[in-house]
Amino acid sequence: MDERGKKYLLGKSQEFQSDLGIISEEQIANASIGDRLTTHLNKEFKVIKPNINDFIDLMDRRCSILIQKDIGSVIAKTGLGNGNKVVDAGTGAGAIALNFGNIVGREGHVYSYEIREDFAEIARKNISSFELEDIIEVKNKDIKEGIDENDIDLVFLDLTKPYEIFEDVYESLNLGGHLVIYAPYIDQIETSYRIAKKLGFSDLAIVETLERELEVRPQGTRPKTRMVGHSGYLLFARKL
Amino acid sequence: MDERGKKYLLGKSQEFQSDLGIISEEQIANASIGDRLTTHLNKEFKVIKPNINDFIDLMDRRCSILIQKDIGSVIAKTGLGNGNKVVDAGTGAGAIALNFGNIVGREGHVYSYEIREDFAEIARKNISSFELEDIIEVKNKDIKEGIDENDIDLVFLDLTKPYEIFEDVYESLNLGGHLVIYAPYIDQIETSYRIAKKLGFSDLAIVETLERELEVRPQGTRPKTRMVGHSGYLLFARKL
Amino acid sequence: MDERGKKYLLGKSQEFQSDLGIISEEQIANASIGDRLTTHLNKEFKVIKPNINDFIDLMDRRCSILIQKDIGSVIAKTGLGNGNKVVDAGTGAGAIALNFGNIVGREGHVYSYEIREDFAEIARKNISSFELEDIIEVKNKDIKEGIDENDIDLVFLDLTKPYEIFEDVYESLNLGGHLVIYAPYIDQIETSYRIAKKLGFSDLAIVETLERELEVRPQGTRPKTRMVGHSGYLLFARKL
Amino acid sequence: MDERGKKYLLGKSQEFQSDLGIISEEQIANASIGDRLTTHLNKEFKVIKPNINDFIDLMDRRCSILIQKDIGSVIAKTGLGNGNKVVDAGTGAGAIALNFGNIVGREGHVYSYEIREDFAEIARKNISSFELEDIIEVKNKDIKEGIDENDIDLVFLDLTKPYEIFEDVYESLNLGGHLVIYAPYIDQIETSYRIAKKLGFSDLAIVETLERELEVRPQGTRPKTRMVGHSGYLLFARKL
Repeated sequence: MDERGKKYLLGKSQEFQSDLGIISEEQIANASIGDRLTTHLNKEFKVIKPNINDFIDLMDRRCSILIQKDIGSVIAKTGLGNGNKVVDAGTGAGAIALNFGNIVGREGHVYSYEIREDFAEIARKNISSFELEDIIEVKNKDIKEGIDENDIDLVFLDLTKPYEIFEDVYESLNLGGHLVIYAPYIDQIETSYRIAKKLGFSDLAIVETLERELEVRPQGTRPKTRMVGHSGYLLFARKL
Repeated sequence: MDERGKKYLLGKSQEFQSDLGIISEEQIANASIGDRLTTHLNKEFKVIKPNINDFIDLMDRRCSILIQKDIGSVIAKTGLGNGNKVVDAGTGAGAIALNFGNIVGREGHVYSYEIREDFAEIARKNISSFELEDIIEVKNKDIKEGIDENDIDLVFLDLTKPYEIFEDVYESLNLGGHLVIYAPYIDQIETSYRIAKKLGFSDLAIVETLERELEVRPQGTRPKTRMVGHSGYLLFARKL
Repeated sequence: MDERGKKYLLGKSQEFQSDLGIISEEQIANASIGDRLTTHLNKEFKVIKPNINDFIDLMDRRCSILIQKDIGSVIAKTGLGNGNKVVDAGTGAGAIALNFGNIVGREGHVYSYEIREDFAEIARKNISSFELEDIIEVKNKDIKEGIDENDIDLVFLDLTKPYEIFEDVYESLNLGGHLVIYAPYIDQIETSYRIAKKLGFSDLAIVETLERELEVRPQGTRPKTRMVGHSGYLLFARKL
Repeated sequence: MDERGKKYLLGKSQEFQSDLGIISEEQIANASIGDRLTTHLNKEFKVIKPNINDFIDLMDRRCSILIQKDIGSVIAKTGLGNGNKVVDAGTGAGAIALNFGNIVGREGHVYSYEIREDFAEIARKNISSFELEDIIEVKNKDIKEGIDENDIDLVFLDLTKPYEIFEDVYESLNLGGHLVIYAPYIDQIETSYRIAKKLGFSDLAIVETLERELEVRPQGTRPKTRMVGHSGYLLFARKL
C-alpha cells in the first residue's frame, strides 16, 4: 500500500515499479507484514497481508464478478461453513470460488465448472496465487454434461439457463443441501423458481439485496447519492 | 422435520413428543440422516442434519439476534474465512458467534464477550449443542475492561456505546484487521464513524442492507408486500 | 377532531354521537372552522376543514385504494395541473378520481369509468360529499366498450388487463397526453410496456416507488422497522 | 420536437436554428399544436404544447431543483389542490413554485420567497414564460424577516436552517394547513422534527422516497442498474 492508500498485489520474487519509484526484488523478498519499504524516490510503502477481498480487487478479472452484497447473502442464508463441499458454475475469473474456498477451508472442497478454457486458466492462476489450489478445483467442463460430485452442501449457479440442470443438481445435493441461482433478469429467476418447485425443492425464496451507504460530512450525515440499483436476484432452494 | 415442513431440534438421548405423536428415545438414538421415523400416531418425521441456520432458528434465544442480511454483509465485506481469529461483544444467545465459529473452523477461534451471566450461560449451552465449544470461547466479562487477545482479524461489536473501546480494539487488531459495528440508530453510527476516523482507522464505510423478496404466484410475479424496513447500520473500519 | 386527535367526517345537518358524548345538530349547523364544540359529557371537539386526504381516510371505502406515494408519482411525472382533462378506470370508491378532481379544478374535468354499479354508487356519494360532483363524472360503464372523450391530458388505468384498450386510449389522448398504468404484477406491466411501445407511445418508463419513514426517539433517529415492501408498478407512456 | 425526439422551447416571435436546419419566424408564428414544420434542410419538427415538466426540463435553471419523486410526495401527502394558497422558500429557478402554481390554478396563489436577486429574476422570467405570473408571485426577500401572508394551506421550505422560522410559519398557516421541509441531511431534518413538535405541530412524519425503474429488454425484464440513492428527506407537519 502506498502513501495514498492505493494497494498493489505482489509476488515474492519480482521488482516493483510505480510512479512513486522502484522497490527492488531483494527488498520485497525480505519484507514482512507491517514493514515499511522505501522506493528509490524515497516514497514509503507498507507491507500488508492481503485478505480475500483485497486479493479479488487486485487480481486478473476479465469478466464481471458478483458483488459483495450478493456473496454475503449466499453465505449467510445457506449457512456455509468450514468443511462444506460446494459446486459452482460458471467459474469466470474465480471470484466466487475464492470466496467459497476461503470459508470451507481444508476440510471442505470447491468444484468449479467453467466451459471456457481461457476463463478456467485465469481462474486457476488466481486461485493458486491465493494458495487455495488444494481446496478449489477448476474443471474446464460444461456442467450441463453432468455433475460428477455427490453429497454436496451447496450448488451455486451463475448461468443463463440454470434450470436446465436442476434434476442433476438435486441428485448431487445431500439432504439439507442448498441450490442457489444468481440471475439478473426476473424472467430467468421466475422460470427457475417454477421448475425448482416442480422438482420437489423446498424452502424456496427469491431475494434481492439493496445496499445503501451513509456518508458523514462536516455539515451532517446522509445516504450517498450514488447507489447500485440492481445487480441480480438470488433464488434459494433446498433439498429436504 | 414433520410432514408439514416444521423442524425440531433434538438431542440423541431424549424422547420426542408433539401434537403429531411420540417418537421413542430408542428410535432417535438409532436414526441416521435421511431416515424416516414414525410416531405412535403413525405420522412420519424425516431426520435432517441441522445446518447453522436451522440450529439458530430453533435454539434457545432470549434476546434479539442479528438478521441474516446483516451477518452476510459482515462476512462478505470483511472477507472472513477459515483460520481467522475473531472477537465479538456482546454475545447474547450466541447467534453471531456461532456464525463466525462455523466459518473460521478449527484453525481459527472466536472470543465472545458477554457481561450478563445468564446470557453467557445460554450461549455456552447453544454453542456446545452445535459442537463448536472448541472454537468459540464465551467470556463472561465486560469488554470495556479490556480485550485480552491480540492479532485479531475481526472485532465485531453490538453494544450501545461501542466507540468507548475503539482504542483498545485498535491495539488488538492485526495489520489489515477489521472493526465492524452494528447499531440501529444513526446517531450511534455517526459518533462511531467520527471516533474511528480520529483514531486512525482506514477504509471507513457505513452500510445498510435492505432485502426484498419476490413472490411467484399463478397470476404473476411481484415483490412481497411485507419487508423489514430497518434492522441496523454497519460501520466497517480497518487497521492499515 | 376529538381531544385524542381522532378525526370524524360530518355533514351539516346531523347530530354527532361518539364515546365522548353528543354534539347537537344545531351546534354543528352553526359551527365554523376553528371553533371548539363541547359534548354533553363536556368533551371538546375542534372543527377542521377536511382536505382531500382527511376526506379519503374517512369516507366509505369498500375496495383497496392507491397509496399516496403512487398517487404522488402519477401527478408529478405527468405534470397534472389545473384545467386538465382526465379519464380513469376503474373508479372503485373514487379515491384516485377525487385526487385528480381536486387538482384539475373547475376548468378541468375527470371522467371515471366503473363497471360495477355498487362501486359507482359509492364513488358518486363520496364525490358529492366532497362537493366535486361538477368536476368528476362517474360513468357506470365498461371502458372496454370505448372511451367517449377526446383531447384528454391523462388516461389512468387500474385494470387487470389494461393493454386491451391501448389503441382506444391513443385515440382519446391529445398530443403530449399521458397514459399511466398501475399494476401490482411484473408480468402485467411488462406486457403493457411491450404493447404500448408497439402502438407508438413515447417516453416509456416503468417506475416503482418505495417510501421509508424515519422515527425520532429520545435515544436517537432511525428508519422505521415497518415498511410497505410493494404496492404496484406504474407504467408511464406518452403520445408525441 | 425533432425527429430524434429531442424537445426545444420556443417563443412565438423568433426564428429557430439547430443542426437540423432553420425554421422561419413566420412558420413558427402560424404553427398550431400538432403541425409539422420543415427546416430549410428538409428536416421535420412536430409542434407540441409543453406541459409543466417539459417546460421545467428546458427552462433556464441555474441551481439544483427538486426531483419529481419528492415533488409528488409533497403534493400527494398534503392533498394540495385547486384553489390552495402556498408559501415557498427559497424560490431558486422557480421549479417547485411552477409545480405548485400549475396545481392551485387561478383560484389559488403561490408566494415564493427568494433572498438572491439573480435567482428571483430568473424565476420571474421562467414563470412568465409559462404564463403563471398571475398565480405565482416571486418576492425578493429573506423569509426570515417574516411571512407577510395568512391563511396559508401549505408552507414549503427548502432552506439550510428551516426551523428558525417555524413560529412564524405556525402563525401564517390556516387550521389544517401543512408545513413541509426538504433537507438532504439527517441532522437538519431531526432538528426540524424536534422543534416542530415542541411548537405544537401535529401529524409529524419524516419520509424519504426511493424510485426504481424497470427496464424491458429482449432478454427479459430487470430493475435498472442506475438509481438515485438519495436526494433528501421530507418532514411533514400540520397545524391542527
